Amino acid sequence: MPYVNIKITREGATAEQKAALIEGVTRLLQETLNKNPATTFVVIDEVDTDNWGIGGESVTVRRQRDTG
Amino acid sequence: MPYVNIKITREGATAEQKAALIEGVTRLLQETLNKNPATTFVVIDEVDTDNWGIGGESVTVRRQRDTG
Amino acid sequence: MPYVNIKITREGATAEQKAALIEGVTRLLQETLNKNPATTFVVIDEVDTDNWGIGGESVTVRRQRDTG
Amino acid sequence: MPYVNIKITREGATAEQKAALIEGVTRLLQETLNKNPATTFVVIDEVDTDNWGIGGESVTVRRQRDTG
Amino acid sequence: MPYVNIKITREGATAEQKAALIEGVTRLLQETLNKNPATTFVVIDEVDTDNWGIGGESVTVRRQRDTG
Amino acid sequence: MPYVNIKITREGATAEQKAALIEGVTRLLQETLNKNPATTFVVIDEVDTDNWGIGGESVTVRRQRDTG
Repeated sequence: MPYVNIKITREGATAEQKAALIEGVTRLLQETLNKNPATTFVVIDEVDTDNWGIGGESVTVRRQRDTG
Repeated sequence: MPYVNIKITREGATAEQKAALIEGVTRLLQETLNKNPATTFVVIDEVDTDNWGIGGESVTVRRQRDTG
Repeated sequence: MPYVNIKITREGATAEQKAALIEGVTRLLQETLNKNPATTFVVIDEVDTDNWGIGGESVTVRRQRDTG
Repeated sequence: MPYVNIKITREGATAEQKAALIEGVTRLLQETLNKNPATTFVVIDEVDTDNWGIGGESVTVRRQRDTG
Repeated sequence: MPYVNIKITREGATAEQKAALIEGVTRLLQETLNKNPATTFVVIDEVDTDNWGIGGESVTVRRQRDTG
Repeated sequence: MPYVNIKITREGATAEQKAALIEGVTRLLQETLNKNPATTFVVIDEVDTDNWGIGGESVTVRRQRDTG
């Protein structure tokens, strides 16, 4: 009965990509720790780039500088 | 001073239902562990069904199959 | 399929009290949102009082002052 | 490589204020524990006031009463 | 820069198994969303079975009944 | 009423350093968003280095290589 929370920036992940993350993490836990997929939760949180910081800056600022 | 985080899928929970969860959890912590309601936090996160997986599938896919 | 995380300070909650929290929260979600207990997760985290702050102080410091 | 999650109610925090939180927390961790800003994550979650409870009530209800 | 939190019950996962989870999730995020491993965090929390509930019961109680 | 969760690796942070984190984050939220310290929670989680991954490896492995 694992609970997996994946936080990523909100930058256009598609439903198919999120489905691939859910399927892949569930299979990984089954193969690695023999966890039952039926009671494996995967929750994906998408976070606005203003709300995610690394290196003391928001991702918004970093993206603007990178594409400046 | 408990902190309770309730994650549910975003499927139409009303303000009244969320208020009932907040009240019920706060009362439960007071009755069970004598925790002070004034410093009991309850945070409810509603998650899109594309972003919640169980059994290796998203809830969106499961709901579509169940109502197919 | 709710996921509920309850964070409390590590101050002697017994197995019975934690069982009561698990049972109570699960029942509350069933009664309030018709959630299936079989896929309702409740995870309790107990946190050392040095590691929990309120009012800018650790709970350890506050407890010492209260019982000083 | 700290991970810091700041949850606040969704009540109009500006991009500048959130940038100040990111910068301040990152600097605090560098000064206090010598953590490398380049691998310090700060994630800010803004929560609707219907979804945040304190004292057994939602913040929405409390705000309405305070400004009633 | 994803942050992944994996919560499992504390039931003997080895350092090698946890390393496999870290490596697998990091590779999955790289392959699925082109995320940079160097800024992908994976944090594994192991939870006592008294502190994890499903179906309104603790995992401790369920394990005892299953092996009773 | 902010809730702040700080996750760091378990590598010897002292009670004084954790107190400094609690005080600093609480002051930052007061100065930046005018949040009331009396209802600001700060919870610090210390994670074993086997249980924290970056770059697809556990911090234990990286520390051993760095000091090899």
